[in-house]
Amino acid sequence: MARRAAGRFVGWFRPDRRAGGESLQEQLYAAIRRAVLQGELTAGERLPSSRALAADLGLGRNTVVTAIERLAAEGYLESRRGSGLFVAVDLPAEGVRPAAGDKPPSLSRRAAEAPGLHAEGESRAMRPFALGAAALDEFPLELWRRLAVQVLRRQPGDLLGYGDARGLPALRRVLAGYLADSRGVVCSPDTIVIVSGAQQALDLIGRLLLDPGDAVVVEDPGYAGARDALAGTGARLLPVAVDGQGFDPAVLAGLAPVPKLMMLTPSHQFPLGMTLPVARRLALLAEARARGIWIVEDDYDCEYRYGGPPLQALQGLDGGERVLYVGTFSKVLFPGLRLGYVVLPPQLVEGFLRLKTAADGFSPGWPQAVLAEFIAQGHLVQHIRRMRTLYRKRRSALLAALARHAGDLLVPRLSEAGLHVTVEFRDGRDDKSAAAAAQAAGLSVAPLSRYAVIRRLSGLLLGFAAFPEAELETAVQRLVKALR
Amino acid sequence: MARRAAGRFVGWFRPDRRAGGESLQEQLYAAIRRAVLQGELTAGERLPSSRALAADLGLGRNTVVTAIERLAAEGYLESRRGSGLFVAVDLPAEGVRPAAGDKPPSLSRRAAEAPGLHAEGESRAMRPFALGAAALDEFPLELWRRLAVQVLRRQPGDLLGYGDARGLPALRRVLAGYLADSRGVVCSPDTIVIVSGAQQALDLIGRLLLDPGDAVVVEDPGYAGARDALAGTGARLLPVAVDGQGFDPAVLAGLAPVPKLMMLTPSHQFPLGMTLPVARRLALLAEARARGIWIVEDDYDCEYRYGGPPLQALQGLDGGERVLYVGTFSKVLFPGLRLGYVVLPPQLVEGFLRLKTAADGFSPGWPQAVLAEFIAQGHLVQHIRRMRTLYRKRRSALLAALARHAGDLLVPRLSEAGLHVTVEFRDGRDDKSAAAAAQAAGLSVAPLSRYAVIRRLSGLLLGFAAFPEAELETAVQRLVKALR
Repeated sequence: MARRAAGRFVGWFRPDRRAGGESLQEQLYAAIRRAVLQGELTAGERLPSSRALAADLGLGRNTVVTAIERLAAEGYLESRRGSGLFVAVDLPAEGVRPAAGDKPPSLSRRAAEAPGLHAEGESRAMRPFALGAAALDEFPLELWRRLAVQVLRRQPGDLLGYGDARGLPALRRVLAGYLADSRGVVCSPDTIVIVSGAQQALDLIGRLLLDPGDAVVVEDPGYAGARDALAGTGARLLPVAVDGQGFDPAVLAGLAPVPKLMMLTPSHQFPLGMTLPVARRLALLAEARARGIWIVEDDYDCEYRYGGPPLQALQGLDGGERVLYVGTFSKVLFPGLRLGYVVLPPQLVEGFLRLKTAADGFSPGWPQAVLAEFIAQGHLVQHIRRMRTLYRKRRSALLAALARHAGDLLVPRLSEAGLHVTVEFRDGRDDKSAAAAAQAAGLSVAPLSRYAVIRRLSGLLLGFAAFPEAELETAVQRLVKALR
Repeated sequence: MARRAAGRFVGWFRPDRRAGGESLQEQLYAAIRRAVLQGELTAGERLPSSRALAADLGLGRNTVVTAIERLAAEGYLESRRGSGLFVAVDLPAEGVRPAAGDKPPSLSRRAAEAPGLHAEGESRAMRPFALGAAALDEFPLELWRRLAVQVLRRQPGDLLGYGDARGLPALRRVLAGYLADSRGVVCSPDTIVIVSGAQQALDLIGRLLLDPGDAVVVEDPGYAGARDALAGTGARLLPVAVDGQGFDPAVLAGLAPVPKLMMLTPSHQFPLGMTLPVARRLALLAEARARGIWIVEDDYDCEYRYGGPPLQALQGLDGGERVLYVGTFSKVLFPGLRLGYVVLPPQLVEGFLRLKTAADGFSPGWPQAVLAEFIAQGHLVQHIRRMRTLYRKRRSALLAALARHAGDLLVPRLSEAGLHVTVEFRDGRDDKSAAAAAQAAGLSVAPLSRYAVIRRLSGLLLGFAAFPEAELETAVQRLVKALR
């Protein structure tokens, strides 16, 4: 851009007239704006009339008028009645250039001190033995798509507008029936809140119930995502080692201070897989009642049980008074759906909804409507039944391959449920480097120690649900080769 | 259910054999479970063999075996080799009945002390003058549906599986282009994070930057949802009265302690509507740099400007160093989409992603893919252009009707943008009871004082975007009647 002669703008502005670029008006606006911000046009300086400017710059009068009006509206120029157009006088001379004395702003202490998240990213690639991966290619996608089109056609206003922070009423209704039937959960549509995945339920529960410094019992080993969500409140985590039966309520007596909350996976301990016996469940509930402790029951993959029908939820045994029951559709349908739910003791519903509203308003209505229809038409139960058969076969294939190729190296934990098998190393080797070796061999395995806080464990989590039997067989062979 | 004779179960169990009910196995399971929990079957008591039980109860042997296996798996019964089946001995005798000494658990102090949310619920009904409502009946729904089906067919795996916490790459790419072109935002796909609505952006920003006790400047009046999200961190809000030009940076010099963050709506002050002049913008940025303050620019409805092209964002003037730019598709497309975005200074991206991951993992991929396609094909720009024309007419109709029917009662604030008009009462009456009177007359108006913290303001917010001109005319007449 040529230097501007005093009071004259001839040749000052070189517009780009190629097709598809910015309009001349946009370009002129940007050029004058830049000149003001950089001090090339100085505060109080008078500009030629729009007519003269148009002539000087070789532009149409309208182009110039529009650009100038916009600059005046934004406060770069000011028009004084009768005397013309001026560069605004009150612009700070220094503009926005960095200065020597600038103070760098900081993060919150909480965020600055937060541990790195336990990123599951690398294990989510669809390579064997990716964790948490369901057999997405078996999902009835065409049916889902058809239902999606139908519900949107039927009730566009409901789905486009602001939604209910509790979740779509139709979904809460069918879900209440499903949870009562299949899990013995004590609930009504009014005590269910639909959330954006189980992770959001855990995050909001933490905020609802925990203050900085509060003690929270977590299973060791346990789900790292839950620890991350709860630790974000500033609460202190008390990891409690699980034994062969899962969480031992006898431990609670010796804990000081009394925990505010216990985070448990009674149906299928994550990641070890045992089921908490009813005696322990009852003892836990008695202890929780006597000492004023909340229990969060994370029932993350209860639907996939191969030894018999799914267990009744701890929540049902409690009557839903002290237990907050958390579930998700990520495992049973698909993770991208981002829908989970929490069944709350009635006195917690209002507080939870306040936090949900402040966190993200409400979860989107369209997927909820599709899901409600999917459940109401019986497809959910049918899909689970189909997948259970498929996963049972895949699990057996994985266990057989492990016995065949890795019996001297790896011991599978006995578990009748879930989408992964946890194996331990007979020689107790460092599982992180073992996982890295498997990773290098094109496999996606998670080291067991990632889920432990205090305990020393050495093993691997092997997801099997998304992989056909033949693929599991060769993947086990590759794994063993990588480990030897 | 008949009392059980000692050692015999004849007639003890009365199954319901109606079609469609629970299976006999389920019923037997539930009956034995209940009897154990209620102490009717006592710990250590021996049960008859499954063959004898089947005979006593008149059930098939398989039915009994399945129920018993399930009860044994859950720990209600235990099978001792060679000696038969017993009620488990370690069940606590008290079961889960409430006891006198039970301690009620409590909420977190933060949650217990939180003010009630400023529920927008009642004003979201589609009655005039509902706030934040766009003209959803003008939305190109058929096109959206077609794109939805297309993208799901093209990349089902990407959309069903775990997604990127940053948001779908394709969406961040087109959005970066759109924001640079239309708003002068300085960004790249890597500094954009897709969130579940602007509310989530504000919530996560609060957690990223604020510790309890930190001072946060908010505009007074200002957006209540932002105050709720930021106050949830335990930060202290410093409401600063806006004047006729919006937020006055001169106020900052007198504030103690130095705020950690300022929450601003420079394009279109919410709810009063003025645009912050560039001189103030520059002074604000200089002050923020000198004193280490973060600025959050909430650009909630920047697309709807009737006096000229949308203003350049404050973020662009800053070069994206101290300003976090927050936007949403709720106003420009539809609220049920639940997609918003934040453009972050590069050094904040990683910390923000950690919090997003802990909060809800990632936002769902399918709607992001549809939106990316919608933007890439030029539909977004075209839709905004169409809506701008429509809304301009509706806004003029509302202003004309107000002048015609309520000139002696209400003074509209001058504003060239947005989806609502703010009017003030000439007589400064209590606006909450005025809003209640309008509510009773079937209208949905928000009192201006709801958005004020310290300032005493009396007025109404009248949303116009979703209502045809004739409806606005009669609604104004009804409003005036209700107010007189």
